[in-house]
Amino acid sequence: MINKERLKRTQKRMRDEGIDAYLILTHDDYIYFFGEDRYQPRVVIPAVGMPMIITFRGEENEIIESLGVDDVRIFGTVGQQIKEVVELMRQMKGDKPDLTIGVQMWFSTPAFLLNTFQKTNPQVNVVDIAPVMDGLRMVKDKEEVELMRRAGEIASIGMGVAVKTIRPGITENEVAAEVEYAMRKAGGHGTATPVYVNSGIRSGWLHGTATDKKIREGELVVVDLVPRYQGYCANLCRTFVVGTPTDKQRELFSVYKSAQEAGIKALRPGIPMRDIDNAAKAVFDAAGYGNFYVFGISHSIGLGFEETPDPTIHLTDSMMEILEGMTLTVGHSVLSVPGVGGVRLEDTFHISADGVVALTSFPTELAL
Amino acid sequence: MINKERLKRTQKRMRDEGIDAYLILTHDDYIYFFGEDRYQPRVVIPAVGMPMIITFRGEENEIIESLGVDDVRIFGTVGQQIKEVVELMRQMKGDKPDLTIGVQMWFSTPAFLLNTFQKTNPQVNVVDIAPVMDGLRMVKDKEEVELMRRAGEIASIGMGVAVKTIRPGITENEVAAEVEYAMRKAGGHGTATPVYVNSGIRSGWLHGTATDKKIREGELVVVDLVPRYQGYCANLCRTFVVGTPTDKQRELFSVYKSAQEAGIKALRPGIPMRDIDNAAKAVFDAAGYGNFYVFGISHSIGLGFEETPDPTIHLTDSMMEILEGMTLTVGHSVLSVPGVGGVRLEDTFHISADGVVALTSFPTELAL
Repeated sequence: MINKERLKRTQKRMRDEGIDAYLILTHDDYIYFFGEDRYQPRVVIPAVGMPMIITFRGEENEIIESLGVDDVRIFGTVGQQIKEVVELMRQMKGDKPDLTIGVQMWFSTPAFLLNTFQKTNPQVNVVDIAPVMDGLRMVKDKEEVELMRRAGEIASIGMGVAVKTIRPGITENEVAAEVEYAMRKAGGHGTATPVYVNSGIRSGWLHGTATDKKIREGELVVVDLVPRYQGYCANLCRTFVVGTPTDKQRELFSVYKSAQEAGIKALRPGIPMRDIDNAAKAVFDAAGYGNFYVFGISHSIGLGFEETPDPTIHLTDSMMEILEGMTLTVGHSVLSVPGVGGVRLEDTFHISADGVVALTSFPTELAL
Repeated sequence: MINKERLKRTQKRMRDEGIDAYLILTHDDYIYFFGEDRYQPRVVIPAVGMPMIITFRGEENEIIESLGVDDVRIFGTVGQQIKEVVELMRQMKGDKPDLTIGVQMWFSTPAFLLNTFQKTNPQVNVVDIAPVMDGLRMVKDKEEVELMRRAGEIASIGMGVAVKTIRPGITENEVAAEVEYAMRKAGGHGTATPVYVNSGIRSGWLHGTATDKKIREGELVVVDLVPRYQGYCANLCRTFVVGTPTDKQRELFSVYKSAQEAGIKALRPGIPMRDIDNAAKAVFDAAGYGNFYVFGISHSIGLGFEETPDPTIHLTDSMMEILEGMTLTVGHSVLSVPGVGGVRLEDTFHISADGVVALTSFPTELAL
């Protein structure tokens, strides 16, 4: 069912920004408004009035019933879908001199769709919807935090299975199989990223999908999990060593752990995101690893596994102020040292009215 | 290690098309050239000479060793990554009046990246790389077909588990958990789409992710699987009824099965893609379901779960000729009848020199 409260707040912001309609092309905002997902999420939200949904014809009746939206246009092919959108735009424009349409410009927006839309709608002014949606999405309501807490529990269950499963001779992919399965069995609805299990030299990668590489005694293993629960994500990452860690491995781990703790300690409303980075970087600097520091140790998370503010993607987001209600991860940056490997620890937090609350929970121990 | 044969053929085509360089931003073409994947696949392939890889700094030495490419530029942040690409473009342009760069324009190309690239490279002419890559990617070599055959076996194993698991009272998501796990255990490297398990009214959806909805006696259940093996996909879809099917369910299933068989029978080199649709549609027409026919019953599959030719996305692809070496699915369109539900059956085929060879194999039976 459509969330009318969220719709109302969005439309108010759209009018303030001079945006006539928001064309939804991505899953996250579809779930934000309707609480469920579709294969091809296509909705036009006007600045005033009810949304118009463009859906596959087999889903028409069911959409009308379950979402509480009357204006449903149906398509049988992608061509028809585009035609419906163009037709809607023409109707909305009418005799107005121009029409301003907001579209999400983020990694998940397909360039193909956006280009097609611009080509077929030359009379329409396309702008980024971020000034409208970012402000709403970054501050979570109670219901959203609860879904993320569930996702966090599922991540912790997955990590527990990783600890029990990792042993010399098992492949990264075999570990991923057990972890993925455990998270589904725990109620998770798939994952927002692949299940990352990166061992040995691959622990120093930015991320690597789990491969058929066998995990060997003495290797660093980074396990990074982003399960979804009803669309919402939590991020939990730990690094392990199979067998007895070397002094160098212990050192990297200890430095990273201190840096993450410093970042978490700094977390509070009213400070800019970069203060979290500064707190973490001070630890890396003091330990002589400052040159290995990758900027952006904290980012927002919710329906997107990375969303605004996200200084790792948009450096200017580091100036954004942390607000009560945000959900942020701390520990995003990998400490990757050539010849040794990589260490990363990441957890998810809610900046609540009563202080910072962890949404993920798992012991931070290097040895398995 | 870089596949020099594929590189050579690509560069020849780039020169023929007047493209100075191909900027890879997507996983599929990265795997096509290097046989492995990275979190952020960023490569510039010039029309002459060796590729330049832009990679995360922790991965530099390992990239040089494992891929056999010397020119590796490193980044620590997304900002640096974009700067490296811009700098490379400036170097390539030199004193030339203009520079033409090919980029993939498909669903997986992020609009965000493409827009940033165009804004920061106003001197560069950006064109679609499809005329170069589509011709290469659509005809599979022996090695690619072997990987897809493995993916097909994994899909069949997953479907077997679906049959054993589906029963009244189990949720869609619980079935998905077992199927996903079985496919990983069978050697699969995750899936190209979520594991679709859609029951009841949801069987008529274009696709729906597996939810906590319980499967009930008498419902249609569509299970659609696209596992990956080393990046390559195979697509297998079956529809089941829990318990005794109704006459109407039997009828839909029987019509769909005949339509898929007609499509498969029509498959051969030298005919346009639309002949497959025509063969299938004739069956739907004869049975009185012509109005429910969704155009595009066959599409190419490989590193992409849908790739060119794909008439469901680009209607003009229906005029493309089927070539020896292609790998195509037959059965993509859902037969979705409001009030009854949906039926879909899909398999993957290789148009080999010795005839049409199925890469997926599973009994086509409605009753479990």
